[in-house]
Amino acid sequence: KLIDLMEPLHAADIADLLEQINAYDRARLIRLYGREFDGEILSELDEGVREEVIHLLHPQVLAEAVRELDSDDVVDLVEDLEGPQQQAILGALEASDRLAVQQALTYPENSAGRLMQREVVFAPEHWNVGQAIDYLRSSEELPEQFYHIVLVDPRMRPVANVTLGKLMGSRREVALKDIAEEMFQIIPVDQDEADVAYAFNQYHLISAPVVDDDGRLVGVITIDDAMIVLDEENEEDILRLAGVGEESSLSDRVIDTTKRRIPWLVVNLGTAALAALVIAQFEQTIAVLVALAVLMPIVASMGGNAGTQSLTVAVRALATRDLTRANAWRVIRREMLVGLLNGLTLAIPLGVLTALAFSTPLLGVVIGTALVINLFVAALAGVVIPILLDKLGVDPALASGVFVTTMTDVVGFFAFLGLATVVLL
Amino acid sequence: KLIDLMEPLHAADIADLLEQINAYDRARLIRLYGREFDGEILSELDEGVREEVIHLLHPQVLAEAVRELDSDDVVDLVEDLEGPQQQAILGALEASDRLAVQQALTYPENSAGRLMQREVVFAPEHWNVGQAIDYLRSSEELPEQFYHIVLVDPRMRPVANVTLGKLMGSRREVALKDIAEEMFQIIPVDQDEADVAYAFNQYHLISAPVVDDDGRLVGVITIDDAMIVLDEENEEDILRLAGVGEESSLSDRVIDTTKRRIPWLVVNLGTAALAALVIAQFEQTIAVLVALAVLMPIVASMGGNAGTQSLTVAVRALATRDLTRANAWRVIRREMLVGLLNGLTLAIPLGVLTALAFSTPLLGVVIGTALVINLFVAALAGVVIPILLDKLGVDPALASGVFVTTMTDVVGFFAFLGLATVVLL
Ligand SMILES: [Mg+2]
Ligand SMILES: [Mg+2]
Ligand SMILES: [Mg+2]
Ligand SMILES: [Mg+2]
Ligand SMILES: [Mg+2]
Ligand SMILES: [Mg+2]
Ligand SMILES: [Mg+2]
Ligand SMILES: [Mg+2]
Ligand SMILES: [Mg+2]
Ligand SMILES: [Mg+2]
Ligand SMILES: [Mg+2]
Ligand SMILES: [Mg+2]
Ligand SMILES: [Mg+2]
Repeated sequence: KLIDLMEPLHAADIADLLEQINAYDRARLIRLYGREFDGEILSELDEGVREEVIHLLHPQVLAEAVRELDSDDVVDLVEDLEGPQQQAILGALEASDRLAVQQALTYPENSAGRLMQREVVFAPEHWNVGQAIDYLRSSEELPEQFYHIVLVDPRMRPVANVTLGKLMGSRREVALKDIAEEMFQIIPVDQDEADVAYAFNQYHLISAPVVDDDGRLVGVITIDDAMIVLDEENEEDILRLAGVGEESSLSDRVIDTTKRRIPWLVVNLGTAALAALVIAQFEQTIAVLVALAVLMPIVASMGGNAGTQSLTVAVRALATRDLTRANAWRVIRREMLVGLLNGLTLAIPLGVLTALAFSTPLLGVVIGTALVINLFVAALAGVVIPILLDKLGVDPALASGVFVTTMTDVVGFFAFLGLATVVLL
Repeated sequence: KLIDLMEPLHAADIADLLEQINAYDRARLIRLYGREFDGEILSELDEGVREEVIHLLHPQVLAEAVRELDSDDVVDLVEDLEGPQQQAILGALEASDRLAVQQALTYPENSAGRLMQREVVFAPEHWNVGQAIDYLRSSEELPEQFYHIVLVDPRMRPVANVTLGKLMGSRREVALKDIAEEMFQIIPVDQDEADVAYAFNQYHLISAPVVDDDGRLVGVITIDDAMIVLDEENEEDILRLAGVGEESSLSDRVIDTTKRRIPWLVVNLGTAALAALVIAQFEQTIAVLVALAVLMPIVASMGGNAGTQSLTVAVRALATRDLTRANAWRVIRREMLVGLLNGLTLAIPLGVLTALAFSTPLLGVVIGTALVINLFVAALAGVVIPILLDKLGVDPALASGVFVTTMTDVVGFFAFLGLATVVLL
């Protein structure tokens, strides 16, 4: 009855269901599911839950489930597993598949070699349409998924792609070369998967041949896998910008989530202490004029927000390669101008309201000026810091936030309290 | 010479180049480029620069450029343009193409109807492989891009997809139905493009038929277009979480960027004023103990960070549909526990250091307790507010930040200064 209910669900939806229920229900569901458990479900599960489920599965069910999968999906499955679980799954595979998976695992993590499928359809570059069609129709086993025939030279180096659609629509005597796609990108086997995803998105690729160091065809990457990587890279940036370890998931245990969030909070504790140290320098001033304590968080908080805006735009532009060496100076100048304009625009209402509320015109001038300074610094730091981090090879999504908000806190408190000390006392 | 240099570049790269240089150089480059200007480049350009470039192009060059494009790309091009520019482009099209584009524009913005291409390859469901191949090979004109043959019933309702690869690999007498893909998703023409992108990513679709209200086949969406939408939706979330209007781009004019960032800063000014009001209630306390002014930003800032972590995870999980009605309560309980654990862990060092630095043990107890309270509230608000906004039909990425940080500021200052007033005075 349960199996009837689950039957129409896609593996990805069943995986989501398993992730959303608690561990107890998960174990019960899997017990009930028994032998019907599908390999695709394992592929779709998040890492944490996946390990748990593999533990729960009967070894024989696991073996069968894994044997159904394409080799690239098995690679994706085993690469994140601990030694013993990895061995169990490799052991379940047929010898030839196991070899293919082990070969793929020799490529660096997050590289094109891990992402590609080894089953490629290719043809000599001098063939014509008729030869290609006859070859395809007589092949014993074609890959589950393929969209192009890769044309190769005599040394197995890919030279062009022919879409199956073009092949079907052309006369038999037409040379494959003459109907090859204009757009053709070759991917080195050790290229980072993020760069692969970028290329697919930028050039609207559907599949692309992967080559080894000698330029020889070793596999093919398809857009569905590139799309998953692009989505993961975006998720990584979203979470890193918020100071969350990127591999977090709602199905993680509470203790893991806590551990994953605390490092950034500890760093923030340090930078907050730094800001407190700045304030401490002005204790005398505050003692005389307590209104400063009331107003000072406004300047710091506005700077933090403006800085976050600017750094997020910069981090995103670096990720999409819209911010490059070619336009860095222009972008920096632009941000400074934006920061200044925002500062001036907002300083007026803030200054006037402050002057009225505290019946001290000079206090309005002080807070307005401090705001302009801090929003200018925020905009500048927001774009310069990500660019510098990127140059140093540090992910700007990961670290920009700390630097920028520390900067805006320190500058915000210092500018406001410093000006107040000079002007008002 | 310039054209020789640009020749090997992909349209997307030329578009990026045009976006990265300034308006003056852009105008010169386009003048030099002259008649060679390609329609694909227009497609790839960001909205703002695109309008500028259309203005710069000679009407005849524009007409030719646009006539090269697929109808779905023309739709994407004209839908964002002002009336006169839109008319100019529509006027340049052949009558049949113009009709197709105008038809597409009748579908709601950001709907599947705007995203699909109208050229579909389909076949009656009762055909066999041989019939399909003969039909394809005798077709005058096949679409540039297609990966499936859509099987339809006599009323033109799609019933299954057959991949071209399977078609090539099967014997002529095999029924198409028997080699149809297991995974098959039909997309209603008025479905939101974000849901389309979700379906492609979740079910690893390559292309999917689009149907009208009567369930009849009207077009097809391919994964390359879905990938672009998914990336745009992610970008929207990244920027909205940082309080930046989502359609911003580095090539926008300074004044536009300023206008786009200021609304959120104005809102933040309001919430910062609210926090100042809270502090103002405790002016007496601060006057007695200025150390409180030094320490109070720490509690507020920690709360802001913890709240941002929690809300970002929640917003992302809502976007990926990992957070649903089914597990909302579990996730809320989890976050409360994480907030409490983080609070307790960090309260100890903060309390001890404060007690030592100010030689006042009770001050350490006060700040530690305030921190625990604020991190608990941060975690709770961080997950509850996005869920509520989502239920109300407001994009949680857009508005959660204001509410959560206002909450953590107010609670942070109130808890710390309130406790201090009670305990220390
Ligand atoms: Mg999932
Ligand atoms: Mg697969
Ligand atoms: Mg992987
Ligand atoms: Mg990666
Ligand atoms: Mg694959
Ligand atoms: Mg990244
Ligand atoms: Mg780009
Ligand atoms: Mg671009
Ligand atoms: Mg559009
Ligand atoms: Mg949208
Ligand atoms: Mg298209
Ligand atoms: Mg959205
Ligand atoms: Mg999911």
